[in-house]
Amino acid sequence: MSDSEKLAPATAEQEAREEAVIAQVLGSFAGCADERLRTVIQALVRHAHAFVREVRLTEAEREAAIGFLRECGDITTDTRQEFILLSDVLGLSMQTVCVNNPAEGEATEATVFGPFFVEDSPEIDNGGDIAAGASGTPCWVTGTVRGADGEPVPNARIDVWEADDDGMYDVQYGDDRTAARAHLHADGQGAYRFWAITPTPYPIPHDGPVGRLLQATGRAPMRASHLHFMVTARGHRRLVTHIFVDGDPQLADDAVFGVKPSLIKSFVQRPAGTPTPDGRPLDTPWTQVRFDIVLAHEPPRGAAAG
Amino acid sequence: MSDSEKLAPATAEQEAREEAVIAQVLGSFAGCADERLRTVIQALVRHAHAFVREVRLTEAEREAAIGFLRECGDITTDTRQEFILLSDVLGLSMQTVCVNNPAEGEATEATVFGPFFVEDSPEIDNGGDIAAGASGTPCWVTGTVRGADGEPVPNARIDVWEADDDGMYDVQYGDDRTAARAHLHADGQGAYRFWAITPTPYPIPHDGPVGRLLQATGRAPMRASHLHFMVTARGHRRLVTHIFVDGDPQLADDAVFGVKPSLIKSFVQRPAGTPTPDGRPLDTPWTQVRFDIVLAHEPPRGAAAG
Ligand SMILES: [Cu+2]
Ligand SMILES: [Fe+3]
Ligand SMILES: [Fe+3]
Repeated sequence: MSDSEKLAPATAEQEAREEAVIAQVLGSFAGCADERLRTVIQALVRHAHAFVREVRLTEAEREAAIGFLRECGDITTDTRQEFILLSDVLGLSMQTVCVNNPAEGEATEATVFGPFFVEDSPEIDNGGDIAAGASGTPCWVTGTVRGADGEPVPNARIDVWEADDDGMYDVQYGDDRTAARAHLHADGQGAYRFWAITPTPYPIPHDGPVGRLLQATGRAPMRASHLHFMVTARGHRRLVTHIFVDGDPQLADDAVFGVKPSLIKSFVQRPAGTPTPDGRPLDTPWTQVRFDIVLAHEPPRGAAAG
Repeated sequence: MSDSEKLAPATAEQEAREEAVIAQVLGSFAGCADERLRTVIQALVRHAHAFVREVRLTEAEREAAIGFLRECGDITTDTRQEFILLSDVLGLSMQTVCVNNPAEGEATEATVFGPFFVEDSPEIDNGGDIAAGASGTPCWVTGTVRGADGEPVPNARIDVWEADDDGMYDVQYGDDRTAARAHLHADGQGAYRFWAITPTPYPIPHDGPVGRLLQATGRAPMRASHLHFMVTARGHRRLVTHIFVDGDPQLADDAVFGVKPSLIKSFVQRPAGTPTPDGRPLDTPWTQVRFDIVLAHEPPRGAAAG
């Protein structure tokens, strides 16, 4: 998509005037001593002006945009960050993740980090339960951690976190509980296993300007059901990702565009009474999922330095 | 400038992933019932994603951008609108003005409206004085208002407003004064004349995040000296513009990119004691400027409807 294809001002004089504005703005940043800042802001200027010219933005629309940003500012607090939500629902968070996690062989795809990670989650043993009282259908999660050459990655740290089946993360209850989040270490062969709860969909906060934008454009605020992973091991790129639930009707409409086909996993239903893999006594239905993780190398193999 | 020229992800797989994100986001807005909103937001998505891909935006940079927007929100009040300043210093306000005031023959160029216009300014007679006590060197302003075919526009309404020579607009003093702003009507032949004060430079508010952005990029917050005009007449496009002072050292660095060569006027210096054109007694130096105004037609001549 070329910026210049769609501009089509009525006359050459008008085109020259519009391009002169851009040239002036770019020139004003030419003396920026920080080379990276100059590159970024000049690119921002080019794309933002191309947008204004392409859509022939009206004064009323510019004012509406300014008012929208102000509303985002008004609702933002330390615990409610509307500008992040805006970045999320425009896919810019996901695009940034994509750009910063270049494809490498079979390496597992990354997806959005989300706002609900907490440092220093409780450690569980390999095979333990992260639920800690969070409501939901028990889910047995197993897999391996390997490098992009297929080699096992021993002792990788695996952080996992998820919403309960009311669609709430522990931190959203505001009562200092810790539930449905933990970390564990894979074993010496890179194998890991733990109990979690089966993911269910939840909405992003949608009572503010971003929610109104979604409504005005016919979009839903729901996130597809997911379980968050962060996997860390020396010599490998940190992986922040989710797994999604095959068959979830929200998969096609994830509000933040986090779904990748490679991350959709079969959560196999087990009726109540089915013996559990680790002998845990359960008189409810449960599910079972396998997620084999492949970590990219860090620094990337074959990449030139710098 | 083509969006696609500079993207250059390392591999075809990576490129496909990045383009898949864009396709998903565009698709999410495909059902937007408001056609204009859909057009605008899909264009915004394309340009914003092209920006992220082109500069290979890092996670830290995305977070810094989010933090910057939050700071803009934090400082914004009913009387301090940092998002407008941001639009101004990126030239987006000027570009929007440009797009909405297409070139038509000799029609006078428009420029930014600025935040200091006030409705219902006092009316003065043609030949009166707008200063009303504002400090500054008296300036005799004369000219004509014509249409783009050269025909006089009788009785056009001319609103004028400016900062005093401390760089302050009346409304910035917060004491309800009205000074250096007024409106008058051209005569039956479109001729107008009034006393004002000679424009001097002033800074835009630069004690917030936008000011820090200017500083970080080596830019000054100064506006070139100017006198604001808004000219209104039936059958003509409303003209919002400034005149600038030939020789002003700020002309090349106007913080909001409002300067157009066609709007730079010679403010002729008159030593103290020079007889004034209207016989006003003055024992100080004064200046004199001519500004002949040409209004575009409304609707534009020869423009197809719609
Ligand atoms: Cu662009
Ligand atoms: Fe989540
Ligand atoms: Fe001004």
